[in-house]
Amino acid sequence: MESHLAKVFNGIVGGISLEVASVTIFVALLCFCILIGHLIGENRWTNESTVTLLLGLCAGFLTLVVTKWRNSRLLSFDEELFFIYLIPPIIFNAGFQVEKKQFFQNFSVIFLFGAAGTVISFCFISGGVYLLFKLMGVTSFGIRQFLAIGAIFSATDSVCTLQVLNQDETPLLYSLVFGEGVVNDATSIVLFNSVQKLDLESFGALSALQLLWTFLYLFITSTALGVATGLFSAFIMKKLYFGRFTWMPYPHDVYLNAFFPVFNFWGKNSLNLHSATREIAIMSLMAYFSYMLAQMCSLSGILAIFFCGVVMSHYTWHNVTEGSRTTTRHAFATASFVAETFIFLYVGMDALDIDKWKQSNGSVHTTLVVSGALLVLIMVGRAAFVFPLANFANCFRSRAKISFSQQFIIWWAGIIRGAVTIALSYEQFSAARQSSSDGAFLITNSIIVVLFTTMVFGSVTSPLIRANLFSNSSNVPASEMDPSSLEEAQVSFLENIGDDEDGSISMGFILMHPMSAIRYLWRRFDHRFMRPLFGGYGSTQ
Amino acid sequence: MESHLAKVFNGIVGGISLEVASVTIFVALLCFCILIGHLIGENRWTNESTVTLLLGLCAGFLTLVVTKWRNSRLLSFDEELFFIYLIPPIIFNAGFQVEKKQFFQNFSVIFLFGAAGTVISFCFISGGVYLLFKLMGVTSFGIRQFLAIGAIFSATDSVCTLQVLNQDETPLLYSLVFGEGVVNDATSIVLFNSVQKLDLESFGALSALQLLWTFLYLFITSTALGVATGLFSAFIMKKLYFGRFTWMPYPHDVYLNAFFPVFNFWGKNSLNLHSATREIAIMSLMAYFSYMLAQMCSLSGILAIFFCGVVMSHYTWHNVTEGSRTTTRHAFATASFVAETFIFLYVGMDALDIDKWKQSNGSVHTTLVVSGALLVLIMVGRAAFVFPLANFANCFRSRAKISFSQQFIIWWAGIIRGAVTIALSYEQFSAARQSSSDGAFLITNSIIVVLFTTMVFGSVTSPLIRANLFSNSSNVPASEMDPSSLEEAQVSFLENIGDDEDGSISMGFILMHPMSAIRYLWRRFDHRFMRPLFGGYGSTQ
Repeated sequence: MESHLAKVFNGIVGGISLEVASVTIFVALLCFCILIGHLIGENRWTNESTVTLLLGLCAGFLTLVVTKWRNSRLLSFDEELFFIYLIPPIIFNAGFQVEKKQFFQNFSVIFLFGAAGTVISFCFISGGVYLLFKLMGVTSFGIRQFLAIGAIFSATDSVCTLQVLNQDETPLLYSLVFGEGVVNDATSIVLFNSVQKLDLESFGALSALQLLWTFLYLFITSTALGVATGLFSAFIMKKLYFGRFTWMPYPHDVYLNAFFPVFNFWGKNSLNLHSATREIAIMSLMAYFSYMLAQMCSLSGILAIFFCGVVMSHYTWHNVTEGSRTTTRHAFATASFVAETFIFLYVGMDALDIDKWKQSNGSVHTTLVVSGALLVLIMVGRAAFVFPLANFANCFRSRAKISFSQQFIIWWAGIIRGAVTIALSYEQFSAARQSSSDGAFLITNSIIVVLFTTMVFGSVTSPLIRANLFSNSSNVPASEMDPSSLEEAQVSFLENIGDDEDGSISMGFILMHPMSAIRYLWRRFDHRFMRPLFGGYGSTQ
Repeated sequence: MESHLAKVFNGIVGGISLEVASVTIFVALLCFCILIGHLIGENRWTNESTVTLLLGLCAGFLTLVVTKWRNSRLLSFDEELFFIYLIPPIIFNAGFQVEKKQFFQNFSVIFLFGAAGTVISFCFISGGVYLLFKLMGVTSFGIRQFLAIGAIFSATDSVCTLQVLNQDETPLLYSLVFGEGVVNDATSIVLFNSVQKLDLESFGALSALQLLWTFLYLFITSTALGVATGLFSAFIMKKLYFGRFTWMPYPHDVYLNAFFPVFNFWGKNSLNLHSATREIAIMSLMAYFSYMLAQMCSLSGILAIFFCGVVMSHYTWHNVTEGSRTTTRHAFATASFVAETFIFLYVGMDALDIDKWKQSNGSVHTTLVVSGALLVLIMVGRAAFVFPLANFANCFRSRAKISFSQQFIIWWAGIIRGAVTIALSYEQFSAARQSSSDGAFLITNSIIVVLFTTMVFGSVTSPLIRANLFSNSSNVPASEMDPSSLEEAQVSFLENIGDDEDGSISMGFILMHPMSAIRYLWRRFDHRFMRPLFGGYGSTQ
């Protein structure tokens, strides 16, 4: 600790600390990226992720030159930073701002893609890499390594996908691709974790069942944890209502206006600011707590914080003061945006880490062949589940079938691999577990795949969607494109008759429209029991 | 790095990582502190800092018991965390929300207290400790150590002071005590830094001049850096105006309402959210950049980020969208509040660090005597400059003289010592520089002083101010208490006549009312040149 101290105080008191200099340059780069991203915002062939990645590459190259080819990364961050600090705000914001109706309407399809789809992709990639390496004569990898490679390259990148897709323009695609990404995270963790623990001697049907059980357990407990934390925060906000003191029978604005009649534009409304500060702090800290608690219990933090965000936007958000509402919406979006920019910048710089490239002794030719093969396997593995599963799901959807062009975009956008892939491949192939030139070779390959997919697929997806949108919008009117309009009408009709007949709906309706019936029952439950307890839109304070 | 990785992935994939567990518990403690702080908010004899400190002590004790008396701190943080991550949001928010008029009106007094006052206090404490240790027979300290002790215990705690004083209730006291704290930081750094570099052989009048020059250089460059960064951010906001695209001649709301006529309460106003996100990100990152750049250049980051906050609230804040304005006000206050809570919780836990107490082999009696003596020296050293300097300043103030009861509160509130004192005493007396039992003894003493002053002086200041407020408000009407009302009238009168006579004011007026003239000239300069370039209240976009 003393060495750290000395380092910091060098920066504060005496000379220039390397740590302080690195953070300063990194913050300056972040500002620069945001400005450039804003300036190229009009351009349809590039996006902010790609620009940030390229800037990261340039900065890494400059650092390499300045440090005389010793170091490219500026910050001696470890992957810890990524999982503990950068992922939570991104996923929480996604849950907080997600179009809840769309998400839950498509939940069955999302679950199918995220769970079954990831397993199919995992099998394809593992098998393909096994065959490829057998052909190439690489012998240092065992079954466990091949399975791990499958899990690593099955993890899609929710972050870049979020930047590429637009929730307002293509709500169905957004909820499908993003929702799949969230479930995919849980599946990847289970797969990767199971591969590490796998008893290769007695692998059979029982192991597969165990895997399924682990996945379901993980999914349900993580979700429950997130929902519970969100509900707890809503309960606290409702009971302690920070904007109102217990000895005040009227809303506090009445007192404020009586005691301090003049408020200027800057707002000397310190009581409001005081309570808003506490509300926002509690919301952020509770959300983060759900993520960390899930990680601590070896559950999926991503799932937990996602559902915590969903519950907070449904209940907690309605219990806080007006200022807190505006602030949470904007501040969470900003935190998420900065974290995304940070990740892309860092991945760009990390790609030029000279040690990794030195340790990997594959020739340029071999590297390109293996990266290309991995990319093809990812594409084939994704095609192998997107098209069959989408058509399977279409059989059960009376309206809003997933058209072929939409299936194509789902396939295309999900090929992007990101920071999770890099972090997992480090975990598997870095010095701690298996320090060989083959391991380093695989790490460099995963970097190439991530850079290539982010830049190429990330850039081309937006124009692709726009082309698809325009060709579609000329044929189908907006009201028909909205899958919810008809069902909505049914549910609102049900709600009207349901209240008259003491809330009972006929068995026939439940059998005919199971999803509508579930949604109707949930709404009634929400209205009668949840909102009085946890607050929410339209509830009485 | 691999060990870090393994640690994290233990948390994510396999067992429970200690790091993840610590962060989780710490976040839970933070939530708990905020809730408890809210519940005791009505109580006049305690405040949030004290409660948080006590909770930190309890948590530290529990951790000690659980880890079997090995560790009390939960997090293996170093003081780096404090200077790089926790101080910037607190000081930036203070600058951002400070009552600018009060601050600049009292600037001469603030500067007098912060610079001359700190030097007087430094001399008193250094001399007192020298005599004390000579009496006690401690011989292991040299002149350099005594001077360092003087600098360490002259550093006031701006954080707790901010919590204790209220900007709306006592604007004059708030601006004096807080402003002094900001200038005090620069002075302490110069003193501490100079003590380290001091050439003890040839110490004379030249050295004192050099010290003065260093201080002025540090003060001016740090301020200039902060102001420049703030102005740059305002310029960017005005030129790039994130809420408006270049190809849009009308404000973008016109387009939004034309294309997406239905906005629900949750606000699908994604274009607004998009631009607000970038605005808030740029403002936060630029402010942080000014702090880090100042630290990197061995200037005072606290001064830089404070003035950056002042400039941002004067110019930048007026150039952003409505949503960004609400958000920045609330989000910066929240960040500051969480950082404050974090610091008090951490100092509480840190106080029970068993290693420090074991290393210090002073008896309970000696420890209490020395702590008490230090406390008395701090109080005397502060009294030695507050009362004389306040009376000196009163000679030049025609109105709004600092009354004796106000002087008493300024003296009392500024006795609080905080995390800066602990961090600096670590720096001076930890293993890196001087690992002796006497050094450890001094560290434990500084912890006792910090805990005692924060709890006792922090708690008693609020009731003291309230008692003083009530006794004053019965005598003096509010309009007379406001020191600015008369001068304001003069300036606004001047502005009216000034505009007619092509802006020239008579030499006589400048000599009679130099401060009013400076303010008037600044306002005209601001209005004519600054606002058209950097935006601000009432400027045309």
